[in-house]
Amino acid sequence: MHPHISFDRHTMVLHLLDQRKLPLIEADFCCKTVADVQFAIKNMIVRGAPAIGVTAAFGCVLALHELAPLPKPALDTALHTVLYNLETSRPTAINLHWAIEHMRSIYYSLAHAPVEDILAAFLDAAYNIQAEDIRICETLGQIGASLIPQGATIMTHCNAGALATAGYGTALGVIRAAYAKDPTIKVIANETRPFLQGSRLTCYELMQDGLPVTLACDNACAFLMSKGLVQCCVVGADRIAANGDTANKIGTLGVALLAHHFHIPFYVAAPLSTIDTQVTTGANIPIEERDPNEVKMLGNTPISPLDVPAYNFAFDVTPNEYITGIITEVGVLTAPYDASIAKACLG
Amino acid sequence: MHPHISFDRHTMVLHLLDQRKLPLIEADFCCKTVADVQFAIKNMIVRGAPAIGVTAAFGCVLALHELAPLPKPALDTALHTVLYNLETSRPTAINLHWAIEHMRSIYYSLAHAPVEDILAAFLDAAYNIQAEDIRICETLGQIGASLIPQGATIMTHCNAGALATAGYGTALGVIRAAYAKDPTIKVIANETRPFLQGSRLTCYELMQDGLPVTLACDNACAFLMSKGLVQCCVVGADRIAANGDTANKIGTLGVALLAHHFHIPFYVAAPLSTIDTQVTTGANIPIEERDPNEVKMLGNTPISPLDVPAYNFAFDVTPNEYITGIITEVGVLTAPYDASIAKACLG
Repeated sequence: MHPHISFDRHTMVLHLLDQRKLPLIEADFCCKTVADVQFAIKNMIVRGAPAIGVTAAFGCVLALHELAPLPKPALDTALHTVLYNLETSRPTAINLHWAIEHMRSIYYSLAHAPVEDILAAFLDAAYNIQAEDIRICETLGQIGASLIPQGATIMTHCNAGALATAGYGTALGVIRAAYAKDPTIKVIANETRPFLQGSRLTCYELMQDGLPVTLACDNACAFLMSKGLVQCCVVGADRIAANGDTANKIGTLGVALLAHHFHIPFYVAAPLSTIDTQVTTGANIPIEERDPNEVKMLGNTPISPLDVPAYNFAFDVTPNEYITGIITEVGVLTAPYDASIAKACLG
Repeated sequence: MHPHISFDRHTMVLHLLDQRKLPLIEADFCCKTVADVQFAIKNMIVRGAPAIGVTAAFGCVLALHELAPLPKPALDTALHTVLYNLETSRPTAINLHWAIEHMRSIYYSLAHAPVEDILAAFLDAAYNIQAEDIRICETLGQIGASLIPQGATIMTHCNAGALATAGYGTALGVIRAAYAKDPTIKVIANETRPFLQGSRLTCYELMQDGLPVTLACDNACAFLMSKGLVQCCVVGADRIAANGDTANKIGTLGVALLAHHFHIPFYVAAPLSTIDTQVTTGANIPIEERDPNEVKMLGNTPISPLDVPAYNFAFDVTPNEYITGIITEVGVLTAPYDASIAKACLG
């Protein structure tokens, strides 16, 4: 797959593959300004915690490029405001915060340097975050692959693939690495309403790579598990608390609890940058609530009465006790998660 | 709501409200032949176990009306074949079998009567099944309403409403009766992929009657329960085994297991005609598998890669141990279900 996030340093344009239109249309969404980047994140042209982080880093580059003509004290203030706005485009994925905070620290460490030098440093940092994310996914993929039983059918929810990262993927990175070792594994992709990341993105990605994937409605999960058709679950994460509680796409909690009921291992695959040690438990992770029309409309077609209220929580939180292991680039973290996370992140 | 199944004895036409087109279009689907009725059942123009039973009864009327010119031994054979085909239009809902078997027994009991008399008896019987179904729904609604806690939010899955029965509904009958006594109750309708009976039909029905309903994606169930937003679940049934195991729309098993996890009561509401005492456990209930395109397309719009395989099991089976009670027209059946069902159905 071509990189779905690519920054052209000559034209200073960030090219995103418009994920709203996949799998039928492969359209380029060009971001020439940080406002374009903010629009892209808010409207899920790009989504997935690590991919949002990479995109936001290039957003910081565009922000500084736009504001560079300002004299120094005004630049500080304007950049602060713009990055704050970018950071609040979506509340749950911690990588957005992490990437912008990283760029901020570069800005302050180069406080007295000419703006051209800061811009060059921003650009290097953004490219590094992108390259590093792919390397991390490949590493955690290799580590996670060893957990997948021979010939297993793996259920995944949402899209934690190349399209949710800089490339290769977290959950789908594990699946890709497992498939490279054992071509008898199979995948069930939950369609993941309302945005259909599973049917539109996960199926698209895995089919492009020739992996055997079968699509299922989210509500088939319990039935498929009850019939012995699932041996293992692997999902991504949007934010992991210090105790291992994991916020991920709405529906993940149901998959985890049902996997627990049917004695099926349930893994989370995520880079350490998705762990937020500032947040003690999942109860403190903010859960984004999006426009009810995403549930009530499919494209421009209404699929419910127009005036019915609808819930559209974008994420849920899986308590640590239902997570068999968290697959990271430094190894598989297991319970007690307070200790294993502290060791991996802090020491 | 107008009756969505109505038979005109003067024109000998069965009028069905086309449930594929709701809620945006209220279109009449006219069945002039038993083949039309079979098409309507197979393609879910009408769905819901009791509604399928009523429709099939009128289908038998049309079948006999068409075949009436045949001389007697040929009529027997032709009717046998036609009713067998009608009966196999969908495998899971037992009311289809039950209604046709009822008409068959009338046919054989009037073996020597003139065909006009048999046709008149068929018509009376079909009208009776229809009227009786509404009466049964009203009775079980009253019985079930007493189980609903004051001010509860009730989650329901699929559509077990007026549109799934001759009128009033089973699960929605309970909800309608509960609302009449306590206007502070609320409803969460799971959208019920892939056919969207929840968003298209349940929301439509409840809004027409002014009941407070909020739509949710199926995969939000665990999150909503974890947040204390659900006090009670009530669903319908397509077939109940002698031990209480219940086949209902795909996704019901997940709702039941999650309700069990969160200590939320989970009720099935169904007429006794949905209980199949010939089937000892849910393992013996046939589960219909439908066209994968129902999962992959929304109307004419593809929502996944066109060549991805997809599961489309239409039902799942909830083991009796996860059912708090089965609400019927003769009372609420509880565990041990073998005994309570035998008592209600057989003695």
